[in-house]
Amino acid sequence: MMRMVDLIEKKRDGLELTKEEIRFIIKGYTKGDIPDYQISALAMAIFFQDMTTSERAELTMAMVESGDQIDLSAVQGVKVDKHSTGGVGDKTTIALAPLVAALGVPVAKMSGRGLGHTGGTIDKLEAIPGFSVEIDTKQFTELVNKNKLAVVGQTGNLTPADKKLYALRDVTATVNSIPLIASSIMSKKIASGADAIVLDVKTGSGAFMKELDQSKQLAEAMVEIGKNLGRETMAIISDMNQPLGRAIGNALEVKEAIQMLRGEGPEDLKELCLTLGSQMVFLAKQAISIEEARSKLEAVIANGEALEVLKTFITSQNGDASIVDNPDRLPSAKYLIEVTANETGTVSTIVADKIGTAAMLLGAGRATKDSTIDLAVGIVLNKKIGDSVKKGESLATLHSNSQEAQQVVEMVLAAYSISDQVVMKPTLIYEEIH
Amino acid sequence: MMRMVDLIEKKRDGLELTKEEIRFIIKGYTKGDIPDYQISALAMAIFFQDMTTSERAELTMAMVESGDQIDLSAVQGVKVDKHSTGGVGDKTTIALAPLVAALGVPVAKMSGRGLGHTGGTIDKLEAIPGFSVEIDTKQFTELVNKNKLAVVGQTGNLTPADKKLYALRDVTATVNSIPLIASSIMSKKIASGADAIVLDVKTGSGAFMKELDQSKQLAEAMVEIGKNLGRETMAIISDMNQPLGRAIGNALEVKEAIQMLRGEGPEDLKELCLTLGSQMVFLAKQAISIEEARSKLEAVIANGEALEVLKTFITSQNGDASIVDNPDRLPSAKYLIEVTANETGTVSTIVADKIGTAAMLLGAGRATKDSTIDLAVGIVLNKKIGDSVKKGESLATLHSNSQEAQQVVEMVLAAYSISDQVVMKPTLIYEEIH
Repeated sequence: MMRMVDLIEKKRDGLELTKEEIRFIIKGYTKGDIPDYQISALAMAIFFQDMTTSERAELTMAMVESGDQIDLSAVQGVKVDKHSTGGVGDKTTIALAPLVAALGVPVAKMSGRGLGHTGGTIDKLEAIPGFSVEIDTKQFTELVNKNKLAVVGQTGNLTPADKKLYALRDVTATVNSIPLIASSIMSKKIASGADAIVLDVKTGSGAFMKELDQSKQLAEAMVEIGKNLGRETMAIISDMNQPLGRAIGNALEVKEAIQMLRGEGPEDLKELCLTLGSQMVFLAKQAISIEEARSKLEAVIANGEALEVLKTFITSQNGDASIVDNPDRLPSAKYLIEVTANETGTVSTIVADKIGTAAMLLGAGRATKDSTIDLAVGIVLNKKIGDSVKKGESLATLHSNSQEAQQVVEMVLAAYSISDQVVMKPTLIYEEIH
Repeated sequence: MMRMVDLIEKKRDGLELTKEEIRFIIKGYTKGDIPDYQISALAMAIFFQDMTTSERAELTMAMVESGDQIDLSAVQGVKVDKHSTGGVGDKTTIALAPLVAALGVPVAKMSGRGLGHTGGTIDKLEAIPGFSVEIDTKQFTELVNKNKLAVVGQTGNLTPADKKLYALRDVTATVNSIPLIASSIMSKKIASGADAIVLDVKTGSGAFMKELDQSKQLAEAMVEIGKNLGRETMAIISDMNQPLGRAIGNALEVKEAIQMLRGEGPEDLKELCLTLGSQMVFLAKQAISIEEARSKLEAVIANGEALEVLKTFITSQNGDASIVDNPDRLPSAKYLIEVTANETGTVSTIVADKIGTAAMLLGAGRATKDSTIDLAVGIVLNKKIGDSVKKGESLATLHSNSQEAQQVVEMVLAAYSISDQVVMKPTLIYEEIH
C-alpha cells in the first residue's frame, strides 16, 4: 500500500516519484484523503529538491485530470492559446486575439477575473458597454468557428487540484518553485483544450520572476512540459522592468489595444503583439514561417481587417462596437491629474509594481475577491524609460474619480527615477525558448 | 503583525528566526492558531536549512513553556536526569537509578509507557508484583528525599507543543532532523525539572541514528542546547549494533538489571552503567572526579548497598522486594524455545531491530497504544557478537507463552550472521561529548 509519508521522504531525499505515485498524491489530495499538512511538506521538499522532467509532466497531467477538461474538438483549426505570466499594463490579449483571428487562427479564450493591479481580461472587456462573456458552450463554439474569436468566462471545474494546491502554497512559502509554477500554468492551459501554447514570460522588477535567469528557467520548464505532453509550445521572455505600453486601467487599456490594432499606440505593445502573434499564426499553420506570419499580421493592421474582427467580436457578444471608432464612449474618469517631474533629465527607472499599486489605489483593481473595480480609472504614462523630461513636465496622468489623489500622485512620482546620464531604452524581447 | 508565511519563507531562505518569532510559532501552534500545514512546511524547511545554536535553544525553551513544568525544588541535591535515545534490550535505567541513588544522587524519575519492542521503564517495573507508580507529587518528593529514588508515571501537561509537533513530523517525513530531535528531547528533560542531564546517544543498526557521525551531531546538538539553557549536560555515544546485554523483555530485563547490581550479568550492561553512572555522580557533586565516581560505584555494587537501595525503592512503591533475592518470583513464560545455530563459526552480526521485532511478536511490546504487554515473555541471547558457536548450539532462548513460535524462531535466526573469520567484539563506548 502506498503511504504518503514515504512519498514525502522519497522526494525529500531527492529521488524521482513515479507516475503512479504522483497520481496517488494528486487524486488523494483532490478527494481530501491526503491532508494539507502532508502536501505542504511535500511542496517544501520539492522547493529544495526540484522535480525531474518526467515528474513535471506527470504532475501537470495529474492536475489536468483532477477535474473537467474543455473539449474544443468542435472548433476548426489548430487552437493556439497564449499565456502571460502577468505584469503591469499588459493588455496584450485584447489586441492580440483579434489580430491573429484576422488571419484565421481560432481564438477560443476562456478567461478569469482574478486579483491584481487591474482586472483580468474579462473585466477589461466589460468596460465595453453591453459586452458579455455569459455565453454557453454551444454559442461559444459557433462564434469561434464563425468569427475565429470568442471569449467566455471560466466554466466547469478546471484543475481543482491546482486550485487547492495553489491556495496551500500561497500560505506555506512554496509558491516560488519552478516545477510547481510551471505545472500549475501548463495544467490550466491543457485543461482549457489548447493544441499549442505560446507563453509570454515576463522578467524584471514588475514581474513575478525578477531575474532573467529565473524567467528563463520557468520558460524552459513550461516549454518542456508542453512538448512532453504533445502540445507544441514556445515561450518568449519579455521585459517587465517598466509597465507595458502607456495605459494602466481597464477602459484605458481597451483604448490602447484599439490604438494598437489601428497601427498607432506604443511601440513596445505593438512589437510584443507582433512577436507573440507571429508565433501563434505559425503554430496554427496559417503561415509557413515566422517572417511570413509577421508580414501578414502587419498587413491586417494596415488594411483594417484586424479592427473589423474586433468590431464583429464585440457585436457578437452584445457589446457596443462603436467604441472602436469612438473610444471616448468608453467609461471615463471625472478628474485628470498630472504627475509632474521635479527635475530635468532622462527617465531611468519606472518601478512597475508601484505604478500597479497606484492604479489599484485609484480603484482599477481588486485587493480582495469582494472588491469592486472602477473600470474608468487608471494611469497613463507620458514618459517611459529613456525619454527626456523637463522639470514641471507631466510624467503621467491619473484618471481618477476622486479629487483626493495626493497619495497616488506621490506613489507614481516615487516610481520614477530621473537621471542626468544618457539612458538606453530597455530591451523588450530577451529571448525565445523552443 | 507577524505572519507565519513570512517566517516559513525566512527559514526556507536560510535566515535565522528570532526568539520572538520562535515564541510566536510555538504559542500559535499550541493554541491552534497556526495550522498543521504551515508547521509541516516549516519543519521541512528546517530539515533542509537547519537551525542555529540560538534558534535551537529558543525552540527548546518555547516548547518547555508551552505546558506544565515539574518543580523539583523540594528535592534536595542536584537533580541529574539520564536519557537514552533508545535501543533494543536497554534496561539501563532500572540498574542505574538504584546504583547512583546509593551514592546520594537524587533520582526523581518521571517515566512513560510508549510504543516499541518492549514496554517503557514503567512497564518493566510493573513486572515486579505490587509495584505501583501511582503516587502523588508530595509522596514522590518525600520518597526521593528519603530513599534518593522514586519513579512516577507522567503527570501534568508537559511540552504539549512537542507532542503535537512530533505527531505531525511523524507523518510528514520530518522526524529525521537534528535540531528538531535535539530540541524535542531536551524540552522534555528540562520540563521534567532536571538540573543536569546525562545523555546516552545510541549508534548503529539498532539505533534511531545508524551512523556514528549522525549520532555525534545529535549528541553535540543536545549538549549545546543544555548548556545554552543553563543545564550541565554531557553525552556518551554507545553501541547499538547488537542488543544491550542479553535479555529483551520486561521481567527478563528487570532480572538482568538485578544481576548487574549484584556484580553479575553481562559485561556491556555493567560497563555502560558505570560510564553513565560516574558522569551522573560527578554532575551531582557526589565525587570530585569521574575516576572517584567510578570507584565509588564499583564499591556500592561490591558491598551490596546498591541492591539494598533497589529493595527499599521497590518496597516504598508497594512492590514485592523479595524478587531481588528470588528473581524467579518475577512473571515467567510457559515455554522456553531454543534457537539453534545452523553452522559453526563466530557470531558476526545480530541485527538489533529484528531481535526487537521478534520480542514484540512474542508480546513483549506494544505495536499500538491499545496493545496489551505480556510482561513475562521475551528473548535471552546466549551468543553475542564475537562469541564462537557450534552447529546445533543455542544462539538464543525464546520465553514464550505460545508453543507456536516458528515465525519468531526464524526471525531471530535471520538476525544472526555467523562467520568463519575472526570477529572482534564491538566497541561499546565510542565517544564522550562535553
